[in-house]
Amino acid sequence: MLDYNVPGGKLNRGLSVIDSYKLLKEGKELTNDEVFLACALGWCIEWLQAYFLVLDDIMDNSVTRRGQPCWFRQPKVGMIAVNDGLILHNHIPRILKKHFREKPYYVDLLDLFNEVEFQTTSGQMIDLITTLVGEKDLSKYSLTLHRSIVQYKTAYYSFYLPVACALLMAGEILENYIIVKDILVEMGTYFQVQDDYLDCFGDPEVIGKIGTDIEDFKCSWLVVKALERCNEEQKKLLYENYGKADQARVEKVKELYKVLDLQGVFVEYEKETYERLLNSIETLPSKAVQAVLKSFLSKIYKRQK
Amino acid sequence: MLDYNVPGGKLNRGLSVIDSYKLLKEGKELTNDEVFLACALGWCIEWLQAYFLVLDDIMDNSVTRRGQPCWFRQPKVGMIAVNDGLILHNHIPRILKKHFREKPYYVDLLDLFNEVEFQTTSGQMIDLITTLVGEKDLSKYSLTLHRSIVQYKTAYYSFYLPVACALLMAGEILENYIIVKDILVEMGTYFQVQDDYLDCFGDPEVIGKIGTDIEDFKCSWLVVKALERCNEEQKKLLYENYGKADQARVEKVKELYKVLDLQGVFVEYEKETYERLLNSIETLPSKAVQAVLKSFLSKIYKRQK
Repeated sequence: MLDYNVPGGKLNRGLSVIDSYKLLKEGKELTNDEVFLACALGWCIEWLQAYFLVLDDIMDNSVTRRGQPCWFRQPKVGMIAVNDGLILHNHIPRILKKHFREKPYYVDLLDLFNEVEFQTTSGQMIDLITTLVGEKDLSKYSLTLHRSIVQYKTAYYSFYLPVACALLMAGEILENYIIVKDILVEMGTYFQVQDDYLDCFGDPEVIGKIGTDIEDFKCSWLVVKALERCNEEQKKLLYENYGKADQARVEKVKELYKVLDLQGVFVEYEKETYERLLNSIETLPSKAVQAVLKSFLSKIYKRQK
Repeated sequence: MLDYNVPGGKLNRGLSVIDSYKLLKEGKELTNDEVFLACALGWCIEWLQAYFLVLDDIMDNSVTRRGQPCWFRQPKVGMIAVNDGLILHNHIPRILKKHFREKPYYVDLLDLFNEVEFQTTSGQMIDLITTLVGEKDLSKYSLTLHRSIVQYKTAYYSFYLPVACALLMAGEILENYIIVKDILVEMGTYFQVQDDYLDCFGDPEVIGKIGTDIEDFKCSWLVVKALERCNEEQKKLLYENYGKADQARVEKVKELYKVLDLQGVFVEYEKETYERLLNSIETLPSKAVQAVLKSFLSKIYKRQK
């Protein structure tokens, strides 16, 4: 179960802890112990990610994940996958206790993971409620709703958590890094917009899954933008075809996205967002923290997977 | 979601924290603050219980819980219940942080809940693997297997956790209470044997659910005892009819249980266990701790629900 679900991702989140910690240490050579501990925290985030993915795939009734069938679709697994998700989750405090119990920041690590998990679960809740079967109503969808789903569901654990782990290891107090948190959450929002875009326009071979946002009636950035830009006739087409598990209808929606030039809109969004984030980062007092955030930004800018 | 899933149980676990804490204080009047904090910890265990039940019912494909349909069977819920389980769970560290962050035992509380959750999830894993569809094999079932499922899945969180919470609030160090832990885990095993018994022989109106252990191929104390006591012919009947969702087959198994006098065997087990536990309790040095354990024992002895 662990071999199937924990490795196989891009490891962006886990590696970010080590990268961020190195940058916070401003080029000072890390001890073996520091490298080990940063790796342990990195793996905690990868286990957290595995836990979310195993359970999300059940709830979204997904087919593939990271180029293989979702765990719950394995013949001998099925609903046992729910408990497997909890086992993945239980190991985070176990890893933390084993390696950090004597550190002065141990309790802050526990609090951090608990807080971030709560935010992620809350984001997932808003997402699930919005896309509830039998209550499909596109008029609820807006950029504001999209933003709140994305911030809670993805940005906190994917972007803020790795940096917060590195800051705690470096002896910092998280209360002093509110602006850094805000920038990272913004960056996470941008990351999810890319995800929404790639779900429709990315190469399934490259991203390792077949997108189903249109069938699943997801509050995707694409449908929100389409609703903003369409005329009455196109809106009717969208209302009639969005959220149906029927390939012909999915194709109609994709066709409309192309007619509305959402690819061009995305390119423009990406450029603007990149520049805005870069400006925010450059107002921060610490060059080391700036370096951490710039490194994150460069990793996701124009990503294809 | 909270109203549907958190209240409605017997509240044994939650109330045990307050009862235990009172007994540890040996009749000294509790302050309002102490009562409040003990209640907060009690509710944490009730939320933990709700979290386990919501998810277990999905995995076991159960029908009713506490006299109403399982949460995931509500038309608008379905697999969203997985996330609802996580939301119930997330609130435990939130409650702990809100009310205990400044207490010297805050980190011990977090560690305690994490440890107990891990044990429970591990017990559920053993249980699920054992009853795996397509791998039904009664020859795996034994008192040893039953014991390890029960201890991990039920005893730690239902019996040890409430007392451990009260001990921490009273300023005690849990490492000094290993024997108390062992006795409570034994008591939890006894409790689960009662549960297995009531699943078949209890009144559905009184226990608030319709038992499905036989259909679900559960490693119940009853089937383990039946395997111990049956002759070759009866064994054949058991192998042919256990674990099938067919009312006629279920009735055949129940009939065999009666022929083997499992009701009498249970009465004898209950009497012996009660006496053995009472003896163990009376060897403990602290009269206050003895009172806590005796109170627990008297609450479950000969329970009908």
